[in-house]
Amino acid sequence: MKLQVTQENLNRALGAVARVANSRNQLPILSNVLIKTDNNRLSISATNLDIGITQFIGAKISSEGSITVPARLMQDYINSLPSGTISLELKESKLHISSDQYQSVVNGILADDFPVMPAIQDGKKWSIAAGELKKALQQVTFAASADESRPVLTGVLCKTDAGQLRIAATDSYRLAEKTIGKVGEEVNLLIPASSMHDLLRILGDTDEIVSVTHDEQQVLFQVAEVELVTRLLEGNYPDYRKLIPETFQQSATLKRADFVNITKVSSLFARESAGSITLHLNDEKQLLSIHSVASQLGENTSEATAKIIGSGDITLNSRYLLDGLQAFTDDEITFGFNGKLEPTILRSGDKSRYVHVVMPLKS
Amino acid sequence: MKLQVTQENLNRALGAVARVANSRNQLPILSNVLIKTDNNRLSISATNLDIGITQFIGAKISSEGSITVPARLMQDYINSLPSGTISLELKESKLHISSDQYQSVVNGILADDFPVMPAIQDGKKWSIAAGELKKALQQVTFAASADESRPVLTGVLCKTDAGQLRIAATDSYRLAEKTIGKVGEEVNLLIPASSMHDLLRILGDTDEIVSVTHDEQQVLFQVAEVELVTRLLEGNYPDYRKLIPETFQQSATLKRADFVNITKVSSLFARESAGSITLHLNDEKQLLSIHSVASQLGENTSEATAKIIGSGDITLNSRYLLDGLQAFTDDEITFGFNGKLEPTILRSGDKSRYVHVVMPLKS
Repeated sequence: MKLQVTQENLNRALGAVARVANSRNQLPILSNVLIKTDNNRLSISATNLDIGITQFIGAKISSEGSITVPARLMQDYINSLPSGTISLELKESKLHISSDQYQSVVNGILADDFPVMPAIQDGKKWSIAAGELKKALQQVTFAASADESRPVLTGVLCKTDAGQLRIAATDSYRLAEKTIGKVGEEVNLLIPASSMHDLLRILGDTDEIVSVTHDEQQVLFQVAEVELVTRLLEGNYPDYRKLIPETFQQSATLKRADFVNITKVSSLFARESAGSITLHLNDEKQLLSIHSVASQLGENTSEATAKIIGSGDITLNSRYLLDGLQAFTDDEITFGFNGKLEPTILRSGDKSRYVHVVMPLKS
Repeated sequence: MKLQVTQENLNRALGAVARVANSRNQLPILSNVLIKTDNNRLSISATNLDIGITQFIGAKISSEGSITVPARLMQDYINSLPSGTISLELKESKLHISSDQYQSVVNGILADDFPVMPAIQDGKKWSIAAGELKKALQQVTFAASADESRPVLTGVLCKTDAGQLRIAATDSYRLAEKTIGKVGEEVNLLIPASSMHDLLRILGDTDEIVSVTHDEQQVLFQVAEVELVTRLLEGNYPDYRKLIPETFQQSATLKRADFVNITKVSSLFARESAGSITLHLNDEKQLLSIHSVASQLGENTSEATAKIIGSGDITLNSRYLLDGLQAFTDDEITFGFNGKLEPTILRSGDKSRYVHVVMPLKS
């Protein structure tokens, strides 16, 4: 293998894929990236067996070949080089990397030993705009569980319902759902949230088309020169839609920035009580106030004017409320609930097609 | 105690002092800040017994008094409030804090229990421009030791020698010295580096005058509305000046940015060898090259053109070399040494009056 690439391209490709290799892996070769010629391009790949990412870049190829090299060293090294042309040449299993003032030899492991994710045969195929998918994943993925004891909740559900694609996640304390609209296929995929985080790093805010292909075991996302393939999670996802309240007895509609501010301030006094804050809706004064008590340290009441329908109190975890509020981009937000024990909901105008549910704490 | 302050002033004062209180302290009251009226001003103080910081701010005082309140909660709370007027009122040991939409009660501890640093009586007094002191401390303080087993090396030495004030620190692996110039007094102070870090946070890049007062036990820095008092370290500081080479058999003079770049790149390959890199000066080619070997992963040679006098090799710790290079602000730098075993030196034009010594590694 002998070729030339630009520092910019190689650095971008390593930046996109190396993180997957950098995760703690049992097999030494999984902390390497695979560098492989592919006609007039060079492919840079990494995998941790659950997910595989490949980026293609342009290269001037003198002779074909492939090798795997340590991902972290390679990424740090190429990133620290000045822009310009870099020559790569494989001699036995050593990759010689030379540029203007820098000469390196990096010890590789033969590419034959590098595990490749199985190809998707006869899968369903549909597509979506990169910017739209990115926004939906940003609004939903954080609500998935980090607790491996209920594996299905560590996934993000992508499911069509009457032709509408919905993307949802819940850790049983809060729930986020974004409705995307029509896609060409019936879809029912449960994708690890960690893979969605990797996908988010790749997606731009653009109208570029993401092509999605999947079978029963895997899903492949292709956008521009990057391919990401991830295994799917198995198991039955809970029927979460029945938790989303359609109507509510109490509601507060206010500026989202005000709601964020008073939640943040009151959360400072909720550190000793595991984030517990009590919201009070005052119909008469048209006021939303939040009360929190730090038994040793003191207490706080923060308030904001709001359009209130129905007075009442409810106790929430301030972090979940704040996460939810910050997932919206709208200026105005409505918070609704039905008494102290039922799920609460955050929603904005119909346009955003995003809802966020937070379960109350016992108070 | 009853008064009004602006959020901006109170926030700035808490930002300056609270870090000292936030350190892990045995006495609960040391994690509090002292708030105290002082004629038409309010003083905000924190201490950890080694160091005490007080900032004075303007306030509209209705009745005098003092109280201590939890530093972290107070800082986070005031920082999260919108700008505007804040009212403070002490009722028994509870501090009531109210602003437009936010009402809080913070539980205090009576100020009588707050330890106050002893006053400096009949001390020597001199002064220095804040910007000049700041630059000197930035160039020197990081070279002090973090290892408490040799306490004197955890200090920064401020000592006059023939009327010239020199500021120096060393951890025995590297040494930094800045010559300031004349000050009005004979000075010989060994100040904890940690206190110098706190002082650095307070100093601006300005011509404001820092007034310095000291006796045998303590030194007080006063700048604008802030006072910082710290205990001094005891013990004999090593006679470090004899380690600074005056002449050298080998030297390389080059652009500092080039030297930084090739050191950074070669350090990536030195992670497995505890940062060990070998510098090679080639008189004939007028080239400085750095070689590093990562036994498992590979090796690197990075080079830069330089004005070389005398060929030779020397092995250094890349981190110490990089720290030293980055402490200079000059465009050009000279690196000199006398064979493989003697201390090496970094210096620039005479104007900077800063020298940095790095001890070689055995190679």
